[in-house]
Amino acid sequence: VTHTFKDRFDLPEGVIYLDGNSLGAMPRGVAAHIDQVIRNEWGRSLIRAWNAHDWVNVQQRVGAKIAGLVGAHPDEVLSADSTSINLYKTLAAALALRPGRTVILSTPDNFPTDLYIAGGLIAHLDRGHTLKLVPADEIEAHLDDTVAVLTLTQVNYRTGELYDMARLTERAQAAGALTVWDLSHTAGAMPVVLNASRADFAVGCGYKYLNGGPGAPAFLFVARRWQDQFSQPLSGWLGHAQPFAFTPDYVPADGVSRYVVGTPPVLSSLALEFGIDLMLEADLQALRHQSLALTDAFIDGVHRKCAGHGLKLLTPMAHDRRGSQVSFAHPDGYAMIQALIAAGVIGDFRAPDILRFGFTPLYIDLDDVAVAVDRFALILREGTWRAPQFQVRKKVT
Amino acid sequence: VTHTFKDRFDLPEGVIYLDGNSLGAMPRGVAAHIDQVIRNEWGRSLIRAWNAHDWVNVQQRVGAKIAGLVGAHPDEVLSADSTSINLYKTLAAALALRPGRTVILSTPDNFPTDLYIAGGLIAHLDRGHTLKLVPADEIEAHLDDTVAVLTLTQVNYRTGELYDMARLTERAQAAGALTVWDLSHTAGAMPVVLNASRADFAVGCGYKYLNGGPGAPAFLFVARRWQDQFSQPLSGWLGHAQPFAFTPDYVPADGVSRYVVGTPPVLSSLALEFGIDLMLEADLQALRHQSLALTDAFIDGVHRKCAGHGLKLLTPMAHDRRGSQVSFAHPDGYAMIQALIAAGVIGDFRAPDILRFGFTPLYIDLDDVAVAVDRFALILREGTWRAPQFQVRKKVT
Repeated sequence: VTHTFKDRFDLPEGVIYLDGNSLGAMPRGVAAHIDQVIRNEWGRSLIRAWNAHDWVNVQQRVGAKIAGLVGAHPDEVLSADSTSINLYKTLAAALALRPGRTVILSTPDNFPTDLYIAGGLIAHLDRGHTLKLVPADEIEAHLDDTVAVLTLTQVNYRTGELYDMARLTERAQAAGALTVWDLSHTAGAMPVVLNASRADFAVGCGYKYLNGGPGAPAFLFVARRWQDQFSQPLSGWLGHAQPFAFTPDYVPADGVSRYVVGTPPVLSSLALEFGIDLMLEADLQALRHQSLALTDAFIDGVHRKCAGHGLKLLTPMAHDRRGSQVSFAHPDGYAMIQALIAAGVIGDFRAPDILRFGFTPLYIDLDDVAVAVDRFALILREGTWRAPQFQVRKKVT
Repeated sequence: VTHTFKDRFDLPEGVIYLDGNSLGAMPRGVAAHIDQVIRNEWGRSLIRAWNAHDWVNVQQRVGAKIAGLVGAHPDEVLSADSTSINLYKTLAAALALRPGRTVILSTPDNFPTDLYIAGGLIAHLDRGHTLKLVPADEIEAHLDDTVAVLTLTQVNYRTGELYDMARLTERAQAAGALTVWDLSHTAGAMPVVLNASRADFAVGCGYKYLNGGPGAPAFLFVARRWQDQFSQPLSGWLGHAQPFAFTPDYVPADGVSRYVVGTPPVLSSLALEFGIDLMLEADLQALRHQSLALTDAFIDGVHRKCAGHGLKLLTPMAHDRRGSQVSFAHPDGYAMIQALIAAGVIGDFRAPDILRFGFTPLYIDLDDVAVAVDRFALILREGTWRAPQFQVRKKVT
C-alpha cells in the first residue's frame, strides 16, 4: 500500500509529515484539477457549469463517495458545510426525535466544537436540555432514560483512543437514546462501519484523512430510517424539494438532501472530491494494517530511544482501542513540538501538554517513522527544545 | 471605468454575460493565484500555512475588505459560510434581542432561502413566532409592536426593484424592530451604506457581484452596538474567544468574530478575496453611474427593438428604485432565455415567467448592451425561441 500511494502525494523534501490528522497532505494533480475547474468550468461555462459540470449535485455526489469509506449507503451521506454546522443539524434532529428526554451525553475531552455546538443548540432551544459530560469509561453507566443522544468522536483527538462504535451505539439504543458519531479522526484512516453498527447520525471532516485541502467541506450521515422523520432547522433553499421552483414555502427534499443548506463552495468541494477519489483506490483494511504497524513502530521507537525524558504515552496499546495517531503528555510538550517542526518532523501540540503525531497510512511509511524517532531522540538528548525560540506560543490548528 | 476593468476579466469570446448576478465572471489571474495557494501554501507549508499565510484570520480579513464595499466598519463584517447560514445566525440574534415580539416581517417574493431559513428558525424555536409576508409597498403599514425583525433583500431578485434601506430601517426601528438586510444583489453592484442607514444586521453573497467564484463564502454584518449583546446558536470552535485553548466551555469571542462557526473553505475563501481585491480598486459611485447607464440602455433598446412581443417590464424606471438588473415577464420566458443563451447572450430565467438580465458594471459595457438587444430582437422577430430544444426545462441557478 505505502509505496503505491506515497507517490501520489507531493510532500516537501525532507519533511516527515505527522499532522495529516490536522490537515491532510496535497495529492499530486489537485492543483492542475482545480486550475481546470477555474479556467474551463467557471471561466468558460460560467453559470451553465452548474448543470454542464454537475456542480449542482456536488454535495450529494461527493457524499455518496464518502459513504463508501464509512460503511453507509450512497444516499445517506452528504458533503456539506463545516463539521460544526453538521453537528448542529444532526444534534437538532436527534433531540427532536427523542422528545421528553433532556440529556446530551458526551465526554469532557470530546473535541471542543462538538461540545460548543451542543451547548449552543440547547441554549438556543431553551427547553431544559443539558449537556452531561462524563469520562468515556463511565458512559455506559450514564445511559438512562433521560438521555436523548450520545455524541462522541470515534477517536479521541487528544489521546488517540478508539471507541467501540458498535457497542456504544447498541447500549445507547438499548437505553432509548440516539447516537451522533464524529468521524473526523477515523474516516479515511480505517474502515468505519456505520450501518453495521446501526449508527443513527454521524458527521466528519474533509480536510484531515480525506486529504480534501484546507477547510474542505465536512460531511454528514443520516441513517435512512431517520431521514424523512425530521426537517432540520437550517432549511436553506438547496435542501428544498424543488429549489428552482422558487416557491415561498419550504418543502424539504426527500432523503438526506434535506440536510443541504445553501450553495456549496465549489472549488473547495472539488478539491475534496479529488482527495476522496484517490482514497477510494485504497483498500481500507490494508490501510488499517499499515496504520497499526506505523503507530506500533513509533511507540516502540520512542520507548527505546526517547526514554528518560518524562514522556507519558496517552494512546492505548491495544490495537482495537487505537486510532491512527500517537499522543504523549509532557509539561514541555509545546516546545518539543516546535523543535521537532524545526527539525522537519511535523506533529502538533494540543493544550495543555499533549504532543500529537498522526500517521496517515496513505503516505507515511516505516522509514518515515524511523527518521522521526531518531530526530525526536536527538532533540531530547541535546535539549534542543529548550532554546528560547521554541517557547513562544503561536496560534496553531 | 468600463474599459479599465473589463480587461481584468476573462470572458468567453462572443458571449455577452448578463448573469453576473447569479455567478460573477472569472477575474484574470485568479486561477494562477489559487494554483499558488494549493502548490505553495498547502503543498509546502502544510499545517503551518494557517499561521504562515494567515489562513486562520481569513474570515475576518476578507470581511474587513467587504466592509469597505458596504459602508461598514472593518470589525463589523465576516466572510463566512453561506448566505442561508448567515441569515440563520443574524435572524436568531435579532429575535433574541427583541424578546416578547413574535413577527418576522418580509415579502412573499423575497429570495426563497431568506423565507425558508426564517421559517426553519421559528419552527425550531417553537415559541410562537410567525413569518408574516406582505407586499413591499405594505411593509410600513405592518410595522407595529409585534414585529421583532424586518428582513428584506435590498434589491428584489425577481424584479430588480431597489428598496430604500435608510427609510425602511428608520421606520422599522421607530416601531421598535430590528432589520436584517440581504445584500446579495447590491454588494459590489453599487454603494451600500449600512452604517449611514443605521442597519442592524446584514448578510450577502460572495459569488455574484463580488466575483468570488462558484459557491464562494457569503458574508455577514453585525453593527457594533449588537455584537456583544448575543451569542449566536452556531457556537463553533473558531468563534470561541480562545479557539486553541481547547477548553470544554464555550466563551464567545469579542465582537463579530463570535459569528464565526467552523473552519473556512480556504481555497474558495481566497478566490473570493481575489475578486474583492479587484472590486476594491473600483469607484463604487462610478460603477453605479455605469450600471444605470447600462440598464437604461437595455430598457430603451428592448422598448425600441423588441416591441410587440408581449414583454412586460418588471424593473422600475426610477433610478433610485432600480438595482443593477432588468427583468421582463413573458409566458414563454423560459424558452426565450434558452434561445438567448444559445445565441451567446447569457441571462437567466426565474419561475414562473421572468427573463432576468444582470448588468455587472465592472465588465459589461454599452457595446455589450447593443449586441444583446440586437440578438434578442432577432430571436423574437424570427421566433427562434419556438424551436423544441428551447422548451425543455433543465435545472438552472
